[in-house]
Amino acid sequence: MRGVVMHAPGDVEVVERPDPRLIAPTDAIIRVSATCICGSDLWPWRGADEVADPTPMGHEYVGVVEETGDDVATIKVGDFVVGSFFASDNTCEICQAGYQSRCAHAQLIGKEGTQAELARIPMADGTLVATPGRPGTELIPSLLAASDVLGTGWFGAVAAEAGPGKTVAVVGDGAVGLLAVLAARQRGAERVIAMSRHKGRQKLALDFGATDIVTERGDAGVAQVKDLTAGYGAHSVIEAVGTQESMMQAIRSTRPGGHVGYVGVSHGVELPGEELFFSGVHLHGGPAPVRRFLPELIRLICDGAIDPGKVFDLTLPLDQAAEGYRAMDQRRAIKVLLRP
Amino acid sequence: MRGVVMHAPGDVEVVERPDPRLIAPTDAIIRVSATCICGSDLWPWRGADEVADPTPMGHEYVGVVEETGDDVATIKVGDFVVGSFFASDNTCEICQAGYQSRCAHAQLIGKEGTQAELARIPMADGTLVATPGRPGTELIPSLLAASDVLGTGWFGAVAAEAGPGKTVAVVGDGAVGLLAVLAARQRGAERVIAMSRHKGRQKLALDFGATDIVTERGDAGVAQVKDLTAGYGAHSVIEAVGTQESMMQAIRSTRPGGHVGYVGVSHGVELPGEELFFSGVHLHGGPAPVRRFLPELIRLICDGAIDPGKVFDLTLPLDQAAEGYRAMDQRRAIKVLLRP
Repeated sequence: MRGVVMHAPGDVEVVERPDPRLIAPTDAIIRVSATCICGSDLWPWRGADEVADPTPMGHEYVGVVEETGDDVATIKVGDFVVGSFFASDNTCEICQAGYQSRCAHAQLIGKEGTQAELARIPMADGTLVATPGRPGTELIPSLLAASDVLGTGWFGAVAAEAGPGKTVAVVGDGAVGLLAVLAARQRGAERVIAMSRHKGRQKLALDFGATDIVTERGDAGVAQVKDLTAGYGAHSVIEAVGTQESMMQAIRSTRPGGHVGYVGVSHGVELPGEELFFSGVHLHGGPAPVRRFLPELIRLICDGAIDPGKVFDLTLPLDQAAEGYRAMDQRRAIKVLLRP
Repeated sequence: MRGVVMHAPGDVEVVERPDPRLIAPTDAIIRVSATCICGSDLWPWRGADEVADPTPMGHEYVGVVEETGDDVATIKVGDFVVGSFFASDNTCEICQAGYQSRCAHAQLIGKEGTQAELARIPMADGTLVATPGRPGTELIPSLLAASDVLGTGWFGAVAAEAGPGKTVAVVGDGAVGLLAVLAARQRGAERVIAMSRHKGRQKLALDFGATDIVTERGDAGVAQVKDLTAGYGAHSVIEAVGTQESMMQAIRSTRPGGHVGYVGVSHGVELPGEELFFSGVHLHGGPAPVRRFLPELIRLICDGAIDPGKVFDLTLPLDQAAEGYRAMDQRRAIKVLLRP
């Protein structure tokens, strides 16, 4: 099959890779209908993470089940499925508490590389959720978004306790930040402040329900959020970048007793204990337990209540993956969908 | 009046200080019935915080109202009152949300120095809670505990979401940690693991409802907590020290999706972002909003449901404050009550 590998920072290629096979009896093999490039794929692309040559890439996917192991009970050949970037058994105490991304038997799907024609999904019953019937092609981008960026933005909103009566600020205008805006509004937030200096992203944030745009960053951005909230700071702040600056901007934009939901993969962050202590905020985040939210997100998408697929502003055939990486790196595209 | 001042690390003295006077019309003056030495008073005593000479000491207090300003409406002369170490208006949005320690107009009571015969309490209506009638002398240690160490341990338990069905671990065997054990049990925790290597403190932890004692610290302590929780870690961990080691011990002892409530005043702590991100824990803490809990704590104490005053294992006249500081510093005493 064809699949994307990264050779080194800035160097990805579509190559012939061996077809995946069932390894454990709980595995499934899916034919990938659509996959995409993640903001986190840009960390190794930019040299911020180590790259082994060749590294299979991709951890977002929707597709059709081609084959299942003998112990797979609920997922059937022919099902159209959405899964998370972590495989999970969905039965351990951690999964049952809703933290499938930290399942006692969690496996990173990224090791399989879903920017490919086929993918092996471990613990298929615990990892995959089947859609009700075969979705129309117009729904595929939104279902694909659910597998990571929507699920991650949603978790950010849940972790930040975005809800009725709340003012929510979102730090980061990538796909996750933009979908966090959608999630906060969908969960009933009264006011959603999107922090972005890019016209196209501001427009999408407004489409997704943002009520205010703040273009300043850092301390100036914090001051703007305080100005908009009678000096108190936002009730809820969603952090969707992962840098020192964005984390501190999020913490400082939150009122005492408020909630920071942080979902940007942390890179080089050191949180000063004393400032955090006296901030009095709640801090929660990490790799999103997307599996927890998939049934609800699939329902909202299939009902037409949300259209997160709008976050894909560039669609390319899988063979042009390299151009997709470049477009996202240069911020010419918010999020790139790849069709195998 | 007589009151304690600190001249320099290791050097406190009871001196004649001017009687406090009403400054704002919302102030009250109280005659202090009992006060005490806080673990946080040991930071400057040990040289970890700057000391101006002379610094009035003390922020824990119960007493009888002697005088009130013209705008004090609910607190009356003759009331027996308990207050927090932060004065708060109890009306701003932050107070109304239960974060009185971060009130928009918060003032540190420590600046007044309650290790003294008299104390001025700002924003008396918002800060003080009157007991139902004049309490018997046997209740005074417990009511005094409510003004800080019990309120702080209680907040740690609330922040860690200690409750029915939960396994709770407590890092720190000072007065706050021991009262966090009491709070966790009182809030319905099924199992409470006290982490202590001191026999006397272990005994008090068991008196307060601990079900397990772990004597190891650091990574060995974390391993013990995991052994006691089927490898998952505790649902809730209360951190009551404030050092790098204790914070990391708390975070690492908590299962993914679990809650760390941290109430030890942070000193030199830097939290590694990446480890925190992948831990998946909830982190909440800071200076306890004791005022939120005072009505409930006073009721529990007056009803005889809890006896947090047992944490005072040394009572001295105010004039012997220096001996009290030495006893706590050398861990000869858990908590020292001073009688003016």
